[in-house]
Amino acid sequence: MITVALPKGSLLKDTIRMLQGAGLDFSGFLDSSNRQLQIVESSGRAQGLLVRAQDVPVYVEYGQAQLGIVGYDVLYEKEPNVAQLADLGFGSCRFSVATKKDGPYRSALDLPPHCRVASKFVHSARRYFQSIDLPVEIIPLSGSVELGPITGMSEAIVDLVSTGRTLKENNLMELEVLFESTARLVAHPLSYRLNVDNLSEYVDLIRQQVLVVA
Amino acid sequence: MITVALPKGSLLKDTIRMLQGAGLDFSGFLDSSNRQLQIVESSGRAQGLLVRAQDVPVYVEYGQAQLGIVGYDVLYEKEPNVAQLADLGFGSCRFSVATKKDGPYRSALDLPPHCRVASKFVHSARRYFQSIDLPVEIIPLSGSVELGPITGMSEAIVDLVSTGRTLKENNLMELEVLFESTARLVAHPLSYRLNVDNLSEYVDLIRQQVLVVA
Repeated sequence: MITVALPKGSLLKDTIRMLQGAGLDFSGFLDSSNRQLQIVESSGRAQGLLVRAQDVPVYVEYGQAQLGIVGYDVLYEKEPNVAQLADLGFGSCRFSVATKKDGPYRSALDLPPHCRVASKFVHSARRYFQSIDLPVEIIPLSGSVELGPITGMSEAIVDLVSTGRTLKENNLMELEVLFESTARLVAHPLSYRLNVDNLSEYVDLIRQQVLVVA
Repeated sequence: MITVALPKGSLLKDTIRMLQGAGLDFSGFLDSSNRQLQIVESSGRAQGLLVRAQDVPVYVEYGQAQLGIVGYDVLYEKEPNVAQLADLGFGSCRFSVATKKDGPYRSALDLPPHCRVASKFVHSARRYFQSIDLPVEIIPLSGSVELGPITGMSEAIVDLVSTGRTLKENNLMELEVLFESTARLVAHPLSYRLNVDNLSEYVDLIRQQVLVVA
């Protein structure tokens, strides 16, 4: 029996739809009365683990799940030791540098050296500013990053932007898009190479789903 | 005008009650229709920032807030550079090592060397196992840590326990209590020492509240 790690939150609905198309039904996780984090699929061929998006690569890396679905942003931040098998196309958002709309900056390179940048994605933010050779101080926040520029704690933020509503409401604007993120299919490298429990069959079925949708 | 960082979540209600007792009314944050993360108190003497509990010490450390209220667990994990001024007495919970109820372990020292321990509090967990001289591998999870022992990914977890309901539901039991956590009043060290905006007056009023409650 294979185990699939599913991400809680915004990617869950599309994840379940895509797995259903591949013959794996985990729609029980969408039931609002459900408190189970671990359910066995009706056919008994697979079990699902419902975990935080950031934890999906952890379960896959440790081989506790053979497959997982997670946003590229999480993979970029954590650089986990997992096999990236497919871009699933949904859950698309931008990973951006943003700052105050009425501020003096029009690109990331305009930011003053050694300024402060708040982010939930400390590692990704640091990598980006290193790549443009701008020394900045990253302030690690775990939520409501937009408060950084509003309170004056930071000049800019690095965050995920989907609709742009939060930025707009807080009078912020995107300076630079670092990359576009979408949901990815990942696998435990060894399980995938050894084709444990016919893993490749599920991978093929999920890949076909991507083509159907596209 | 001073700024106070208030923690979202389980400590918010008691935090607001205690600040009200000290003459600072941030009850607007309890209004379910409120989307503001920053409100100025009716008297105009103070502003409140509503942030994630883990971010409270960040705002205080950077001087963006002169005062903050946060659980001791967060302070123990992050060791931020803030002044700890008072134990506020509420929000008490235990920081514990737990494992499967039907497992072979009856104390933390029974755990096998190099076993895996899942935790949201990586730094605190590491410090604890170093203090008992037991080498373990800490698996960083961001939520639903109880899945660690259930899925077999880890032998034990280190987590906050308040009612014990989650442990019970997942057939886990506490092996060891590392410490008891309660809400603490913290201040920006320099602002406190220089008594910016009569900070010490608010600190005294909040301390009196603790005595009233106790």
